[in-house]
Amino acid sequence: MADLPARTEIGVTTGPIRGSKKIHVGPLGVKMREIHLDPSSGEAPVRVYDTSGPYTDPDARIDIKAGLPALRRDWILGRGDVEQIEARQVRPEDNGQLGPDRSGGVEPFPNVIKRPLRAKPGANVSQMYYARRGIITPEMEYVAVRENLGRERLAEYARDGESFGASIPDYVTPEFVRDEVARGRAIIPNNINHPESEPMAIGRNFLVKINANIGNSAVASNVAAEVDKMVWSIRWGADTVMDLSTGRNIHDTREWILRNSPVPIGTVPIYQALEKVGGVAEDLTWEIFRDTLIEQAEQGVDYFTIHAGVRLGYIPMAAKRVTGIVSRGGSIMAKWCLAHHKESFLYERFDEITEIMKAYDIAYSLGDGLRPGSIADANDEAQFSELYTLGELTHRAWKQDVQVMIEGPGHVPMHKIKENMDKQLEVCGEAPFYTLGPLTTDIAPGYDHITSGIGAAMIGWYGTAMLCYVTPKEHLGLPDRDDVKVGVVTYKLAAHAADLAKGHPAAQVRDNALSKARFEFRWRDQFNLSLDPDTAEEYHDQTLPAEGAKTAHFCSMCGPKFCSMQISQEVRDFAKKQNQGVEGFLATGPTGAETAAASKAAALKGMEEMSRVFKESGSELYMGARGREHD
Amino acid sequence: MADLPARTEIGVTTGPIRGSKKIHVGPLGVKMREIHLDPSSGEAPVRVYDTSGPYTDPDARIDIKAGLPALRRDWILGRGDVEQIEARQVRPEDNGQLGPDRSGGVEPFPNVIKRPLRAKPGANVSQMYYARRGIITPEMEYVAVRENLGRERLAEYARDGESFGASIPDYVTPEFVRDEVARGRAIIPNNINHPESEPMAIGRNFLVKINANIGNSAVASNVAAEVDKMVWSIRWGADTVMDLSTGRNIHDTREWILRNSPVPIGTVPIYQALEKVGGVAEDLTWEIFRDTLIEQAEQGVDYFTIHAGVRLGYIPMAAKRVTGIVSRGGSIMAKWCLAHHKESFLYERFDEITEIMKAYDIAYSLGDGLRPGSIADANDEAQFSELYTLGELTHRAWKQDVQVMIEGPGHVPMHKIKENMDKQLEVCGEAPFYTLGPLTTDIAPGYDHITSGIGAAMIGWYGTAMLCYVTPKEHLGLPDRDDVKVGVVTYKLAAHAADLAKGHPAAQVRDNALSKARFEFRWRDQFNLSLDPDTAEEYHDQTLPAEGAKTAHFCSMCGPKFCSMQISQEVRDFAKKQNQGVEGFLATGPTGAETAAASKAAALKGMEEMSRVFKESGSELYMGARGREHD
Repeated sequence: MADLPARTEIGVTTGPIRGSKKIHVGPLGVKMREIHLDPSSGEAPVRVYDTSGPYTDPDARIDIKAGLPALRRDWILGRGDVEQIEARQVRPEDNGQLGPDRSGGVEPFPNVIKRPLRAKPGANVSQMYYARRGIITPEMEYVAVRENLGRERLAEYARDGESFGASIPDYVTPEFVRDEVARGRAIIPNNINHPESEPMAIGRNFLVKINANIGNSAVASNVAAEVDKMVWSIRWGADTVMDLSTGRNIHDTREWILRNSPVPIGTVPIYQALEKVGGVAEDLTWEIFRDTLIEQAEQGVDYFTIHAGVRLGYIPMAAKRVTGIVSRGGSIMAKWCLAHHKESFLYERFDEITEIMKAYDIAYSLGDGLRPGSIADANDEAQFSELYTLGELTHRAWKQDVQVMIEGPGHVPMHKIKENMDKQLEVCGEAPFYTLGPLTTDIAPGYDHITSGIGAAMIGWYGTAMLCYVTPKEHLGLPDRDDVKVGVVTYKLAAHAADLAKGHPAAQVRDNALSKARFEFRWRDQFNLSLDPDTAEEYHDQTLPAEGAKTAHFCSMCGPKFCSMQISQEVRDFAKKQNQGVEGFLATGPTGAETAAASKAAALKGMEEMSRVFKESGSELYMGARGREHD
Repeated sequence: MADLPARTEIGVTTGPIRGSKKIHVGPLGVKMREIHLDPSSGEAPVRVYDTSGPYTDPDARIDIKAGLPALRRDWILGRGDVEQIEARQVRPEDNGQLGPDRSGGVEPFPNVIKRPLRAKPGANVSQMYYARRGIITPEMEYVAVRENLGRERLAEYARDGESFGASIPDYVTPEFVRDEVARGRAIIPNNINHPESEPMAIGRNFLVKINANIGNSAVASNVAAEVDKMVWSIRWGADTVMDLSTGRNIHDTREWILRNSPVPIGTVPIYQALEKVGGVAEDLTWEIFRDTLIEQAEQGVDYFTIHAGVRLGYIPMAAKRVTGIVSRGGSIMAKWCLAHHKESFLYERFDEITEIMKAYDIAYSLGDGLRPGSIADANDEAQFSELYTLGELTHRAWKQDVQVMIEGPGHVPMHKIKENMDKQLEVCGEAPFYTLGPLTTDIAPGYDHITSGIGAAMIGWYGTAMLCYVTPKEHLGLPDRDDVKVGVVTYKLAAHAADLAKGHPAAQVRDNALSKARFEFRWRDQFNLSLDPDTAEEYHDQTLPAEGAKTAHFCSMCGPKFCSMQISQEVRDFAKKQNQGVEGFLATGPTGAETAAASKAAALKGMEEMSRVFKESGSELYMGARGREHD
């Protein structure tokens, strides 16, 4: 069993991911992870994208109460277009201290920024604004280095894939990043008040990203748990994290998360606004919502989910549905519109919202409040009507150089997935698509990380830029720490499957390295190259716990007496020895007698070794070939 | 937590799957499962396909030592084309009692058939033979009823899907089954010596099926464990089971499994043949292999994996590969060919093998011994060369009216999956495709049920008839009971996602029923309609254990104060009340004041209810919205 990583007193997991170390690349010190392979392999370390921040860096000092260093602060100030302002005063209602129950206060974060930043009057600090003026920011340079991951090995591999019209370059330059941001095809979510974040891009021509959701619960002690979940989710590969907190202590919980997060943080501001009016949707007003946006903007939220596409006229379309409106934000706005019989204030005030976004460089995540909540409702009138409005709003936001991504479904059967991607690309001008799964069937609650992982891999292949994870608890309950990990790893493999299918030049390096390790029985390399080394080794050890089995040239499926990998090696050796094509090879194989003698000896030797290993492990000898891989 | 089902002394799980009961339909008493919904729903019970056999029937008496009743025996004898013969004598080598270690003998099955059946001289007892002569067998009638599942509700749903040229009928008639079998587009694997099996069809125009692998281990006590695994895997939906036993006790273990299995059993005979020659591939002979086929034919194996496509000339093609030959059967034959420098005896003796198959109605599962074992090797020369040979052999088997399916990969990135399906359909004349996954990336050992579930759902959609499961332990170790369940449920949901996307008329009935139950907060119906009711309820109860929460009109994601489902209900009610289209609706909503008052009252009532439920459950009130479903 894997030895557990260290945990700080407040309970976050630290220490390197096994078999790898943190590296800092180039003048900007772009953080990556390098997986070192056994010297016998003669292979270079494999560089992988690293979202885990300082928590996996043994040289970093972690102090949750102080927060992370402000990596980007000098870059931001260096542009000379921001000013420090008096922070908005925190009010009781910001922490939901309104309802009958006032218990469960949260300790405020000790190291709050007293004077947050804002664009100078008339200025626009969005990355899109800079990009459109030809400026390459350090954020763009950072992204370029980060995305290039392993491309130095590109020579080894031919480009191979179907990208459905994407424009993935052989090599990512800062200019390319700038141009993608300028045309709205990629976003770099990084609020100027979240200088702790490591710049990353979300866009169809970059690596497919994944998001993990967390959110606070009502008791103080759980703020630590939410920070821990954030750190835990980025350890396994979450590129962004959404804080979907509701109820009480929203403001303080978010502060703890932001100050300790090296990845962009997204929120759904309407949740907090709703708490401020005691949970009664009809009592929401533009003023309360606007104040909430500013509150969160000053804290440093990097992107806002805004359900501005839920227009009054679309709501009745949901009446025909099997599952109506399943989006919480969408139904809040639907209820408001119904009650007041008015157009949504999010839609009507959209340009005013954009004014706020550009003063902090907050990206829009235009919410799909009318996404289908069941297979029966997929691709219906309500869903696509909203999508067209999101397209309209995308272009309105772009007029002010504000970054935009678009949220997508939901529950969609496989044959209807591509239509979602195609329509989104068309109506939203290739703005990044950010989908939830989609779930490809409704009948497997408890396994919806898988029903949705299928749809996620497919829509990622078709062009979705970021995949929002779904955990095994979806529809049933609240994910715990283990659920978060399973959700993240599942989505990481789905995103990687999409990168492979799109023909991303750097993607296959890791698959090849792992497969070579597997073929050469470098068990430790195989574990270390996997998305979850701890689980891989644990599963292996359940059958072959002995230390010897980590280096043994056989596995538990066939045992040593007979191994297909060994035979393949013989085939290869023969071919090499003859150094020839098929015909020549066939003309000069070894004689049956030779080989028979040789492999009888090998078989006996193998059995001795196997017995020894099993004696060591004290476990029972299985000869059953269970993996159909080995049929 | 779910109360555990009963287990017999030998350790198999019995008792109904929760919320459902076994039904027997029509004159043949076709076994199905009916899931009963809460009376409040006013909905009919949902009929689902049932693979679990008598083990889930409270009225059935289970006696593992006696085996299951011979359901098909009279049908077989009734055709008058078989004779009883003297059974081949069991020899020590049949149970692998050759190696140095003679321990771990298995108790022979007490109720062995003394006089197995065989076709009369010159007769052919295959379902394909009958079908091609226009005969409709009871097996075909049984399949027709079984596949029609839920089609009586078809009226409710329009056909919707993309089937890539499949010919899925609105309604399955016995004539349709006959015609599909006659043209080789479907098979009904049922050896005349396995009369315990319930007839099922594998074919592109029927429901997508899944296979689970089990296999013996070296100690006697584990025969019971293997029988238990077989029963456990069919409980959760395995349509066929492959016994991939190697090592010792192969013969006796298989006997225990066959006599207690209501689903077709497949094997890889070369595994046992290899044991008979002490594990030295070069010592294999046609005579030993032939004798093994007859041994297994008389026991009642329903389909044989035969790697006859691994021809001498293809072997060197594997030399270039990253992972060479990963198929165990494939590498056994490769080694034999290399050693003797001769063409494979499986290929050369193919027509003689077919002669044996037709005398017992054993179906071919033509093995893909050269399938890719890594992303790098997908769709290469070796793989497709073998596929062309499998196409040739398919037509040779069909000449003798023997049923055939074709095994497929393996490891394949998403963009290369469809080419596998298209080529297979073309060269194998639409013979059913039976694939392992495919795995869409190599980098997630420990999660390969998911990397492969993605590929399985896709290739199932494209036309694959049966999906061979992969468990979380693939590449790492031996699956235990829990791994078997996870593998089966994952593949069941993948197969169902494929049926939905193909537009199978009966498929969406279950999704719709579950989604309606979800929308109406019929929690128990939601659990019972899911593929794994036990896990669904367990996950729900981890957050809301109280009995009251099973009927509560809210879930743990939003709590009662605010619920999107309730709002959708309001939307629907308004629309109904107005009984009008969008315009009319917009003209006559309620006034803000009314709704505001109403929902404030509802909010307060909801909070009281929530507090009560949580007092019952003694658990802590979470208000965090964690599911992005609820963003």
